[in-house]
Amino acid sequence: MADYLSMTKPQLLEEQAGLQQQYDAFAQKGLKLDMSRGKPSPEQLDFSLGLLEMTDHIDDTGVDARNYGELEGLPETRRYFASLLGAKPEETFVAGNSSLNFMYNMVDLGWRKGFVQGEKPWKDQERIKFLCPSPGYDRHFRVTEVFGFELLIVPMTPDGPDMDIVEDLVQDEAVKGIWCIPVYSNPDGYVYSDETVRRLAKMDTAAGDFRIFWDNAYFAHHFTKDHKTCLNILDESRKAGHEDRPLMFCSTSKMTFAGAGACAMAASVANIKLASDFLFSTTICYDKINQLRHVRYFAREGGLEAHMQRHAAVIAPKFKTVIKTLHAELDHHGKIARWTEPVGGYFLSLFTLDGCARRVVELCKQAGVVLTGAGAAYPYGKDPSDNHIRIAPTYPPLDELELAAQLLCICTRMASVEKLLEIA
Amino acid sequence: MADYLSMTKPQLLEEQAGLQQQYDAFAQKGLKLDMSRGKPSPEQLDFSLGLLEMTDHIDDTGVDARNYGELEGLPETRRYFASLLGAKPEETFVAGNSSLNFMYNMVDLGWRKGFVQGEKPWKDQERIKFLCPSPGYDRHFRVTEVFGFELLIVPMTPDGPDMDIVEDLVQDEAVKGIWCIPVYSNPDGYVYSDETVRRLAKMDTAAGDFRIFWDNAYFAHHFTKDHKTCLNILDESRKAGHEDRPLMFCSTSKMTFAGAGACAMAASVANIKLASDFLFSTTICYDKINQLRHVRYFAREGGLEAHMQRHAAVIAPKFKTVIKTLHAELDHHGKIARWTEPVGGYFLSLFTLDGCARRVVELCKQAGVVLTGAGAAYPYGKDPSDNHIRIAPTYPPLDELELAAQLLCICTRMASVEKLLEIA
Repeated sequence: MADYLSMTKPQLLEEQAGLQQQYDAFAQKGLKLDMSRGKPSPEQLDFSLGLLEMTDHIDDTGVDARNYGELEGLPETRRYFASLLGAKPEETFVAGNSSLNFMYNMVDLGWRKGFVQGEKPWKDQERIKFLCPSPGYDRHFRVTEVFGFELLIVPMTPDGPDMDIVEDLVQDEAVKGIWCIPVYSNPDGYVYSDETVRRLAKMDTAAGDFRIFWDNAYFAHHFTKDHKTCLNILDESRKAGHEDRPLMFCSTSKMTFAGAGACAMAASVANIKLASDFLFSTTICYDKINQLRHVRYFAREGGLEAHMQRHAAVIAPKFKTVIKTLHAELDHHGKIARWTEPVGGYFLSLFTLDGCARRVVELCKQAGVVLTGAGAAYPYGKDPSDNHIRIAPTYPPLDELELAAQLLCICTRMASVEKLLEIA
Repeated sequence: MADYLSMTKPQLLEEQAGLQQQYDAFAQKGLKLDMSRGKPSPEQLDFSLGLLEMTDHIDDTGVDARNYGELEGLPETRRYFASLLGAKPEETFVAGNSSLNFMYNMVDLGWRKGFVQGEKPWKDQERIKFLCPSPGYDRHFRVTEVFGFELLIVPMTPDGPDMDIVEDLVQDEAVKGIWCIPVYSNPDGYVYSDETVRRLAKMDTAAGDFRIFWDNAYFAHHFTKDHKTCLNILDESRKAGHEDRPLMFCSTSKMTFAGAGACAMAASVANIKLASDFLFSTTICYDKINQLRHVRYFAREGGLEAHMQRHAAVIAPKFKTVIKTLHAELDHHGKIARWTEPVGGYFLSLFTLDGCARRVVELCKQAGVVLTGAGAAYPYGKDPSDNHIRIAPTYPPLDELELAAQLLCICTRMASVEKLLEIA
């Protein structure tokens, strides 16, 4: 085992031949694995089967969840999600099955009607820009792409987005918002530091209607007893005199059933009022039975934390397997790759040599393992360094996952050797 | 009992005094009734309690409804809703809990991306106009209002919108669509004639991307064995070479639980493809468990028709009571009012003398009965003749409904006398 970066051309060619043999052996296994999306495994889904037995339909204030009304969510469920998000019930809007959809709606609100402190709706402004901490969540970026906004990359650090760059960029009045996943970020699994949260809350922005889209999708997704958390952006923003700045989201999609849960937003009362007025034009109400089903089910099962521990027992070993394999297969070939080692969430990042990620994904695919497309975690799907791969370990069974991780390492080494041969 | 329209001023004053006494007696009853929205009664909601016991989560093609995916709906449920809408499964998109939201999305699609045969997205066109058969559904009109479209009134007839006027207005390239409720229309309860459907399908429109928003919300809501139906607009449009023109919607909100059902759209494959591509940017997927829950429940309960007969047994007597009261209290005072007598749906229309509707609603409210706001059934909430009142008889218990209908008649007579005194 030698450092690829100090190999001679003949040595690289010899290594390449060996890797090709290993790769061919894998290809013959006929693997068919999809690791492209952050999907819960069937085993995880089974933890919530009891949810389907819940017949509750009257909330603790007497509202019948079976009928129209309560656009902002069932009162009982607003109280519950408020407690999860660290907000007051009147600051909390409980909605439908997709938090991404709620985020789309809030961008649509800014676009069509405008936020308070905004001079005019975004549609009436020449150019709108959005900050995209990258690597990040492709579906966030796509929302703002479909509105035609200019998407600006902000590098991610283990403490969150690079705040020096953020503070610089928000001096532009056209910059209207930022996408954030503050806890166990997608895809790195980083947790925003206190300083990052405080700087986001305090910073001066040229746009009065600058909004932080705070997608706290994984706040309860701990693998260990070391529960990472972050400061409450609504509290911090209020202290700094910017209480209308953050829109905090969460969802039960990765707690119970993916795509069949409930989501919520917490924000200032002024923002909740704006959201209500706008959403009244787009829908009658959300599925309140499913809202109540979730809240009562978590209570019945001993609380959300106990429920999430069951998930952790399945997910943590999968992350461990991937990380162990990465170490075993990639530690001894020089600096051809690095990766994140999250203690929660749904993803981790693998960084290859520059210009190799697309090739790694292609090689894996040809051998039967589909990864998230290279570049997907960057605005417009374009990774300027072509070095990032998102790994989603939750769905495959442990034994298949181990195989897939081994293949990924072989492909990473192959692509590295190819790249080094180019410049040798 | 005399014809108000031929009364002298002293006679009118005497009548007014008598009506005031009756009104005061009602006001003292302390009624508190909300007839403002088309809400199912608790008794109706109980018909679907079994829905909450359904634990099915794998569809008949093997798809696990508990996980992400199948944006266009679970295959089994696409087949089911296709059969309801008279379309093929690949022409059918099964979505979330709100068909109004799906319609908003389709207008948003036209606005942001544009339809096939459209030269450019609606947002890039100077002025967009939409046809609003009136009286109609306020929430339809509001969707197009929030987009800033100009809303044009088209008079409703018992056969549907006045087609001479429609055919004239669509000669304007800015006219991009029409709102239709073809069966048991909201609020009149009219059913579109074959000729109306054919003319809508066939007519030449200046705009290639003219779209018919065909909200078939009440196609299964018959009161009697005389099941009114209408021609399939997708079939008729295809015959006429306009298969991309109609977007057909339905919803289970008024079949099971209001706001907690599933909705669907049927349209040409090209439109379904456009919808998929666009909605991919706005959400991950819809609640497929609730889709399956509904399809399997209807099957378990002996089919949708049997289920809807249970509703009819509760709703039909309520309509009968209102109509009987209107005859008893308003038949003998000359032409001061007319009303529709639907055999299905959720609403009926009461037409007063011109300039009286707002006053009737106000009088009712002061005596404890809240009706839909006068004018609500017209674009921008403005009834040019101020003569229309929407009656929603489903929610109140029968005995309270009878009292409310009596009060409504007294208020109608009071407002008529006031109006006649003005011009006497």
